[in-house]
Amino acid sequence: MKLSEVAALLEGKLENADHDQQVIAINSLSHATSQQVAFLANKKYIHDVEHSQAGLLLLSLDMMPELSRPILRVTDPYIAYAKLQAYFHPQQPSMGYRDTSAMIHPDAYLADNVDIAAGVIIAAGVHISEGCRIDAGCVIEKNVRLGTKCYLHAHVIVRSESIIGHHVIIQSGAVIGSDGFGFAWSGSEFVKIPQVGHVVIEDHAEIGANTCIDRAAIGETRIGMGVKIDNLVQIAHNVEIGAHTVIAGQAGFAGSAKVGKGCQFGGQSAVAGHTEIKDGCLFAGKSGVVGNVDKAGNYAGHPAIPLRNWLRSASLFARLPELWRSFVTKK
Amino acid sequence: MKLSEVAALLEGKLENADHDQQVIAINSLSHATSQQVAFLANKKYIHDVEHSQAGLLLLSLDMMPELSRPILRVTDPYIAYAKLQAYFHPQQPSMGYRDTSAMIHPDAYLADNVDIAAGVIIAAGVHISEGCRIDAGCVIEKNVRLGTKCYLHAHVIVRSESIIGHHVIIQSGAVIGSDGFGFAWSGSEFVKIPQVGHVVIEDHAEIGANTCIDRAAIGETRIGMGVKIDNLVQIAHNVEIGAHTVIAGQAGFAGSAKVGKGCQFGGQSAVAGHTEIKDGCLFAGKSGVVGNVDKAGNYAGHPAIPLRNWLRSASLFARLPELWRSFVTKK
Amino acid sequence: MKLSEVAALLEGKLENADHDQQVIAINSLSHATSQQVAFLANKKYIHDVEHSQAGLLLLSLDMMPELSRPILRVTDPYIAYAKLQAYFHPQQPSMGYRDTSAMIHPDAYLADNVDIAAGVIIAAGVHISEGCRIDAGCVIEKNVRLGTKCYLHAHVIVRSESIIGHHVIIQSGAVIGSDGFGFAWSGSEFVKIPQVGHVVIEDHAEIGANTCIDRAAIGETRIGMGVKIDNLVQIAHNVEIGAHTVIAGQAGFAGSAKVGKGCQFGGQSAVAGHTEIKDGCLFAGKSGVVGNVDKAGNYAGHPAIPLRNWLRSASLFARLPELWRSFVTKK
Repeated sequence: MKLSEVAALLEGKLENADHDQQVIAINSLSHATSQQVAFLANKKYIHDVEHSQAGLLLLSLDMMPELSRPILRVTDPYIAYAKLQAYFHPQQPSMGYRDTSAMIHPDAYLADNVDIAAGVIIAAGVHISEGCRIDAGCVIEKNVRLGTKCYLHAHVIVRSESIIGHHVIIQSGAVIGSDGFGFAWSGSEFVKIPQVGHVVIEDHAEIGANTCIDRAAIGETRIGMGVKIDNLVQIAHNVEIGAHTVIAGQAGFAGSAKVGKGCQFGGQSAVAGHTEIKDGCLFAGKSGVVGNVDKAGNYAGHPAIPLRNWLRSASLFARLPELWRSFVTKK
Repeated sequence: MKLSEVAALLEGKLENADHDQQVIAINSLSHATSQQVAFLANKKYIHDVEHSQAGLLLLSLDMMPELSRPILRVTDPYIAYAKLQAYFHPQQPSMGYRDTSAMIHPDAYLADNVDIAAGVIIAAGVHISEGCRIDAGCVIEKNVRLGTKCYLHAHVIVRSESIIGHHVIIQSGAVIGSDGFGFAWSGSEFVKIPQVGHVVIEDHAEIGANTCIDRAAIGETRIGMGVKIDNLVQIAHNVEIGAHTVIAGQAGFAGSAKVGKGCQFGGQSAVAGHTEIKDGCLFAGKSGVVGNVDKAGNYAGHPAIPLRNWLRSASLFARLPELWRSFVTKK
Repeated sequence: MKLSEVAALLEGKLENADHDQQVIAINSLSHATSQQVAFLANKKYIHDVEHSQAGLLLLSLDMMPELSRPILRVTDPYIAYAKLQAYFHPQQPSMGYRDTSAMIHPDAYLADNVDIAAGVIIAAGVHISEGCRIDAGCVIEKNVRLGTKCYLHAHVIVRSESIIGHHVIIQSGAVIGSDGFGFAWSGSEFVKIPQVGHVVIEDHAEIGANTCIDRAAIGETRIGMGVKIDNLVQIAHNVEIGAHTVIAGQAGFAGSAKVGKGCQFGGQSAVAGHTEIKDGCLFAGKSGVVGNVDKAGNYAGHPAIPLRNWLRSASLFARLPELWRSFVTKK
């Protein structure tokens, strides 16, 4: 790919560059060769620029204005990197491959150009739309619906009645539609409450490896449009996650929590049951949300408080012995 | 189902109701129609009663005494809901279905009315009792024993020598009997300690999706009668969980922890190795239990302290800056 | 096995023992019979020695010097236990078994004495070296390389291009090489960044059940020599874990974290993205590492501080109400 073509794709402006030079891949600043493109998105790595051998550097419009090496100035180097990487690694379109070892129920409907890998098991009433790819060993239970161009990696389980939108990606080992955790104490034992609802995953969502999304007790558990969920996350029954919310690894959401749009949850954060969180709330890793959060902003700690306050309190926590000694002295 | 039949099943008393009216399902207060039953178990939802279209409302004996709509008064609306839902959604009895793609070792014993779905793999020496259902892609290793009416959802792994009681439910992706995490430092490397014990799961337990229960190093890891374990929980080698204890999602128990009966663990709580916890201890989400707990009660925090104390200390944590300023001023 | 043979294997010194007596297994102090060996490695169990029926006791050179029962004095009873257990339970060598239900691509290479269990799926370009054992239902994607004597338990997923060294053990349900969690915000949605790197696992590592190790965005995610990882651990893209580091259950490492050699992480601990941790750092359970850690030592808390300080501050946290009352009184 010529540098001029890269510039056209990314709508950027070349500086100090031979427009006809070729690049063939992207690499990190420290590993890129003269035939590779590197990018600077995190200022932490600014010192790697000097020694980088990269043939082209993706840089924002205002950063390092005096640099005298081949640069492509773009509005957002990270989004430019995402686009260029997608260009170099295009997803193969599904071709209608059906492995002979796949067990597809005759009452399932699969569009023609759906790829089904070895050992896949598809039950009656399933509907799989155009362009989907189902990798090895996936199990898709009764009446599940998949929209167009979904990609289920190896060993995904989709339990019965789940409804999955278009362009949804599910990583290996994720379980969609397992029973919610609902029991009533009878006085002598816990009685299971049949979990008769289902899961809805909207378009463009991505679900991480070994993540669990429970079906609703009644009604639905809903993952909104464009939501991105990392690995080993727990989504309990009747949870609702608003559009474009991002959830990092090992976070957990208890039953009936309602999360707004555009929220972010750090790793190992947790949300208590029956709480409501408004749009635009960001929670640091290990946050514990125990009540409703009515205002957009940054939060941290358990129980979660505004991030700024938590940072101060956490630094003073380490100095509690000083405070205590003063208290004891004065008593 | 006539309202009079609902009343008989749930041993409740009808108020303001046409005994011959029909209901066909349960739904939430806000979604139920005139042909559906709703229930009020959590006071948080009391304001939904007024606008609910439900044809019948399950209410406790003393709550909202003046309500002039069709009501069924019951001792415990939540347990009534569980029973009625089980009536509307009876579990299908196993019929002896054996999918031709299942790989069942000739030296395994399966009772006649066991259902085996597609892609199931069953090793030599396995014993599966009457009424069990084994869903797609499960793997049951050597010498595993399953009691009557167990339900293993798709992709459950039961490793060798595990002993599972009657009426046990295991959700998808759970791993029963993986190696415990045991290594001895030789001076230059960690040497693996063969994990030669096994797992015992007693009757009526339920194990969540992608939860892991390790086999014992020697002897057994034991999950007691009626224990309910949510998704993504870690149970290490030689742990013992007492009867009717409830464990929420992403909780973790380190090696040889012994937990009493009737305990409850919130999401992401953790118990250190070799600790003992007495009967009737309740731990809030994110609790960290680092030593023995000798007294029934409510606990929270890390390290866990009585819940009441933790609530006070946690609220003061947020006010540490105030306290510090006063300290600095007076110094 | 005669006691004299045990002594020779473990290079220990017998006391009060009949050298020709036979022992056939190892058991815990409280369960061992006269034909079994017990060991004392954790002082917590010293009171179990008195009533133990064990035919031989593995003891360190200096502990309980006056004991008048059959003893084998060894340098390290725990390592002696590990060795003796391995002697009693030798791993069966692979014999070249290939289950007829396994789906092995003709362009995969398997050494002769590799065991392949039922339902295993192996893609093109895979290379599996001598002595490996692949248990039921594993999926090994394109171009994966496995060194000698690896043991993949049932339902392990190894995604494409992963490179796995010699003597690596992977427990059931683990996912190696899932996509990293990388997205760039376009202004209206998150755009997926293709994850084109891979995972490298060095020799003698062990990976726990349902643990996830993401492939790198670019380059590699690397698990060092002899690293031991427990169940349900999250390793994000481009993480590097140094040799002989030990990671307990449900710990999590965010993207590009670099961990030194010989570190230890307690259960549910977490490391933020782009942080560096030097060799020899030990973190208690539930630690949260939010910045670089430049010095070997023991740490705890979130944010992590030296363990000694954390213990003091945590005990004072419980006494915050006292401190507050004094503050209010004096104001």
